[in-house]
Amino acid sequence: MTEICKVDVNLGDRSYPIYIGKDLLSKGELFEPYIVGKQVMLVSNETVASLYANNILKELSSFEIQTFIFPDGEEYKNTEVLNNLYSSLLESNFERSCTILALGGGVVGDIAGFASATYMRGVNFIQVPTTLLSQVDSSVGGKTGINHPLGKNMIGAFYQPQAVIADISLLDSLPEREYSAGLAEIIKYGLINDLQFFNWLEKNIDKIMDRDPQCLIKAIEKSCNNKVKIVEADEKEIGKRALLNLGHTFGHAIETGVGYGEWLHGEAISAGMIMATEMSFRLGWIDKESKHRIQQIFTAARLPISPPKSLSRDNYLSLMAKDKKVLDGNVRLVLLKKLGKAAVVDDYPQAKFIETLDYFCN
Amino acid sequence: MTEICKVDVNLGDRSYPIYIGKDLLSKGELFEPYIVGKQVMLVSNETVASLYANNILKELSSFEIQTFIFPDGEEYKNTEVLNNLYSSLLESNFERSCTILALGGGVVGDIAGFASATYMRGVNFIQVPTTLLSQVDSSVGGKTGINHPLGKNMIGAFYQPQAVIADISLLDSLPEREYSAGLAEIIKYGLINDLQFFNWLEKNIDKIMDRDPQCLIKAIEKSCNNKVKIVEADEKEIGKRALLNLGHTFGHAIETGVGYGEWLHGEAISAGMIMATEMSFRLGWIDKESKHRIQQIFTAARLPISPPKSLSRDNYLSLMAKDKKVLDGNVRLVLLKKLGKAAVVDDYPQAKFIETLDYFCN
Repeated sequence: MTEICKVDVNLGDRSYPIYIGKDLLSKGELFEPYIVGKQVMLVSNETVASLYANNILKELSSFEIQTFIFPDGEEYKNTEVLNNLYSSLLESNFERSCTILALGGGVVGDIAGFASATYMRGVNFIQVPTTLLSQVDSSVGGKTGINHPLGKNMIGAFYQPQAVIADISLLDSLPEREYSAGLAEIIKYGLINDLQFFNWLEKNIDKIMDRDPQCLIKAIEKSCNNKVKIVEADEKEIGKRALLNLGHTFGHAIETGVGYGEWLHGEAISAGMIMATEMSFRLGWIDKESKHRIQQIFTAARLPISPPKSLSRDNYLSLMAKDKKVLDGNVRLVLLKKLGKAAVVDDYPQAKFIETLDYFCN
Repeated sequence: MTEICKVDVNLGDRSYPIYIGKDLLSKGELFEPYIVGKQVMLVSNETVASLYANNILKELSSFEIQTFIFPDGEEYKNTEVLNNLYSSLLESNFERSCTILALGGGVVGDIAGFASATYMRGVNFIQVPTTLLSQVDSSVGGKTGINHPLGKNMIGAFYQPQAVIADISLLDSLPEREYSAGLAEIIKYGLINDLQFFNWLEKNIDKIMDRDPQCLIKAIEKSCNNKVKIVEADEKEIGKRALLNLGHTFGHAIETGVGYGEWLHGEAISAGMIMATEMSFRLGWIDKESKHRIQQIFTAARLPISPPKSLSRDNYLSLMAKDKKVLDGNVRLVLLKKLGKAAVVDDYPQAKFIETLDYFCN
């Protein structure tokens, strides 16, 4: 039997635990302490609900549990679905003591979390992330929200859940490409601030690719711990939390440039991290061997190590100018000061930035 | 010259000041410390904007200031107006460092505050309340939100502003009925927890009705101080904050029963406070003289001291059962334990509640 790991997120009166383990959906006793009233709204998408909703409904059958299921896809993270969720809560007379339980990936977590933050000015929220990406990323840190026709994630709130329950058994049904995309974020934590974890990942990448439970639990635990440390220091993303955007400025340009949905987020930021690595190398901050190791681990994780051929230098420049992380002058980037140490920088020689783009675009 | 009063709201890193005084709109230097970036979105309704928007635009002309003006009325506190405000912010490329400035009464403050809470997960917010009600009530305590077709204020967030600037000169244009409705909340603070303030109000009610600036500033300051004390002790309305609902359970029944908009909120809660007073009297908690004094001050403030004749006992019972503040069994009410001391109670003999309803319905 595998153990259940617990990672504590310490944010004063907004503190909460993350449980990581196998077959957690069949452990109703893990959920119950975090459900305050009797009313529970299970929010999920059609794909995930068809696989796992019944497990939860069975385990929590002593509660007044309702379901809100919407179609699978980022395009449903919108005002309309949110309003339908509000209506569903109101039609069922859900009170302030109710609990919203998100069962799904980032889209489900974001929209259910935002509904939790804003229904009657805030109700209880439990997150059950069902993708590797959401287990290591979106379930930690309290970012919730929806997309607006004029921009992704533009409407939202910082809102912490009562608990996160990350059941690795749910990953069994995850397509290989999505699994790899989640790994991109895991590797990111090693690169940003945890060389030891990076070393461990390098050694165990094959086992992780085989979805070995013990390795997977450890990888998720270490990732959550790393993100927790950063979020605890900067809950509202005023400073240090920006480090989590390693690869994201290049990555967002790729996502937008090829059209959303073509590349998975994890794939785009993998190529983005490779581009950040290349620039860090050109700035003399990391050596050839480190660069090679980074390329190797992304390759082993079946992630792209170069951006799409279709984007030109000018494409990047115009796409990156629109990115939120832009200041006047240089594009603000997260780069590697050394392997296992990232920094936010905007005072680099612009030539190095252009050289890096040209390296990948020619 | 009248002085400027400052009331400090102490909520840790969400603390903020309330300035109360005359001609504050022409004191740009009062606003500037609370505007972080260059971008300011002035949110107002057509009625208020036509009177006062230009003053603010002039005073803050050194900023990149845009306006978002929507029609006057509670029916515009909805998703559509909120989404238009988001679009307006996004179309003008407003960033996380922007400031939203609400110029108006409760509707403007609530919707602008909720947009501030949720645009890019939270931006700076300054509130300039333009009605007596919003100066003493909705500008203190951080409740923001919009209505949903299935319920008032069902969607929202607790979000504190950077500052509140309550300019009593703006009240010059306030219709008499709305002015009295604001006074209802002011008297409420005396009844709940401040006998001394109630005594002072009794003595000065005529001057206040004449809108005497010094008296008005003192009445607003004392009201804010009273609300601040309660909000500081219970920011998220888990306990003590419920005291602020004196007269509201009866009052909401009246508002809903006669149809929203027929009675102003302040008028409905005045009748509600009279009903709560009657019930407190019947429970033996306050004497005849106190009851008389309460009726007197509402009369002097030109507020109703009886509910509309159209509502029957059964109307109240079915309307109050739907109220959020209902528990199983007795309706939870805020009543007066004595003059100047309110309490939340649900363990009263039900007969007293029925008797009270009958007293006003026959």
